[in-house]
Amino acid sequence: MTQELPDWIAVDWGTTHLRVWLMSRGGRVLDKRVSEAGMGGLAPSEFEPALLETIGAALPEGQPVPVVICGMAGSRQGWTEAPYCAVPCAPPGIAEAVRVGAQDMRIDARILPGVKQTAPADVMRGEETQIAGFLALNSDFDGVICLPGTHTKWAHISAGEIVSFQTFMTGELFALLCDHSVLRHSVVDGWDAESFSAALSDAMAKPEALAARLFSLRAEGLLDGLSGEKARARLSGLLIGAELAAARPYWLGQQVAVIGDSGITAAYRAGLEAQGVPVTIADAERLTLEGLKSAFAELKAQD
Amino acid sequence: MTQELPDWIAVDWGTTHLRVWLMSRGGRVLDKRVSEAGMGGLAPSEFEPALLETIGAALPEGQPVPVVICGMAGSRQGWTEAPYCAVPCAPPGIAEAVRVGAQDMRIDARILPGVKQTAPADVMRGEETQIAGFLALNSDFDGVICLPGTHTKWAHISAGEIVSFQTFMTGELFALLCDHSVLRHSVVDGWDAESFSAALSDAMAKPEALAARLFSLRAEGLLDGLSGEKARARLSGLLIGAELAAARPYWLGQQVAVIGDSGITAAYRAGLEAQGVPVTIADAERLTLEGLKSAFAELKAQD
Repeated sequence: MTQELPDWIAVDWGTTHLRVWLMSRGGRVLDKRVSEAGMGGLAPSEFEPALLETIGAALPEGQPVPVVICGMAGSRQGWTEAPYCAVPCAPPGIAEAVRVGAQDMRIDARILPGVKQTAPADVMRGEETQIAGFLALNSDFDGVICLPGTHTKWAHISAGEIVSFQTFMTGELFALLCDHSVLRHSVVDGWDAESFSAALSDAMAKPEALAARLFSLRAEGLLDGLSGEKARARLSGLLIGAELAAARPYWLGQQVAVIGDSGITAAYRAGLEAQGVPVTIADAERLTLEGLKSAFAELKAQD
Repeated sequence: MTQELPDWIAVDWGTTHLRVWLMSRGGRVLDKRVSEAGMGGLAPSEFEPALLETIGAALPEGQPVPVVICGMAGSRQGWTEAPYCAVPCAPPGIAEAVRVGAQDMRIDARILPGVKQTAPADVMRGEETQIAGFLALNSDFDGVICLPGTHTKWAHISAGEIVSFQTFMTGELFALLCDHSVLRHSVVDGWDAESFSAALSDAMAKPEALAARLFSLRAEGLLDGLSGEKARARLSGLLIGAELAAARPYWLGQQVAVIGDSGITAAYRAGLEAQGVPVTIADAERLTLEGLKSAFAELKAQD
């Protein structure tokens, strides 16, 4: 059995993970590989070895294989800086990508830039490629895209461009509070949809009370036996509710596409639908790959 | 030179530290000792050895020495549980204290209870003794006491009783964000009073935007070269501003006493005075000792 060698390679290089897809000439995924060689743990000189190790022996000899990369590998502390494009702009494509000076002649790597906003100051790296993927599949979309995650992004999309966006540290706050705060004694893995919804409504009505509501999870655990599952769902509801209250100018009267992993997109969908907002869900990983495929298609078109 | 032996011993036993004062018959501090044997790192059987090690050889033989303890040593996971008193109540005194079954006959230890509130659920352990100390020095105080710290407390005081209180996780959020979040790259030790005040006003006007304002510290660091000192002061201003917005029913039209360490009380004073609220500052450690002295005076009065 001969293994088909990749025509090109798609890479999503985040802070904590490296995701690599070996792609066929026809755009099929030959293989997908994930490693924990995230940008956060690498010095600039360590990116190329980490990538080659993940690709393994799957490289053809002869012509260098195109590698299209998105994410934190393009940050100032990354492999090679791919300076941000400023909104309003279409999600950056291959024309804006920065070519990496790789040592290994078998690869020809390019990093797609992130997107910045001057006022208020904001940045994204990686999400713009998911937006590109979404627009590749929904070319006439006009509305709002929400990308929940460690740093949740809300983006206004019009005429194929990112018009403005705003980042919320909701996911990081949730992780810090669950893992490192006094609430780690009060939450356990699990979910309670009713507790989530009630806390979300509460936080939307009174978002300023967040820091007090947080401690109530601990106090109710001590005094009333609040279960760890309910506490965790309420914590999520409080944080997402406060975010939805602040992001109201984004979603009010809009159609919203939520791009993310299945667990978190379900929570955002529940929160938004409770406000009467029509929601489309899309899978983040799939759209990242679509965005990288669009960029590669532009590269092919240049040949 | 003969060392004067203690008449009684005052103990503030928190989660991270153990503070011990050796007291003379006349109420003078003979010696103060601090160790890192906080409640958080001790099993129930380890409290007595930790206390004896800190007191050292300073115990007289004969009559057991009274030891009056406040703080987390009285929690369920502590030395011996001292069940909460429920508001409205005066700060618990010696009549509510729980006697500890110590092995060493040279000590006679009692733990003061914390205070709980049923609805909304809330708890304190340690702060009630600072309140007792404040009321011992200001017996006719009627108003609000704010105790900033890891878990900041706001308490309504009337006719010598704690009427109601509310806890905010502000201090813990600040520490988590400075030390463990993406903002750790953006803040450095230092302070900028103007940045603090501006962020505090901003957060009070729009408290729901907290999670977005937090990320702007990172983005402005990347795009605009925001300094680490300014970022840290703004982070503090955002968190304290959000708290003041939520605690408005506590401080509006009240006289407020802020009890804490000098750095944090100055920040709260600045924030409250900007709202036109008259503020008295008091030192937390001094008031803890005053509260323990009040409890010991009750014990003596029983003899």
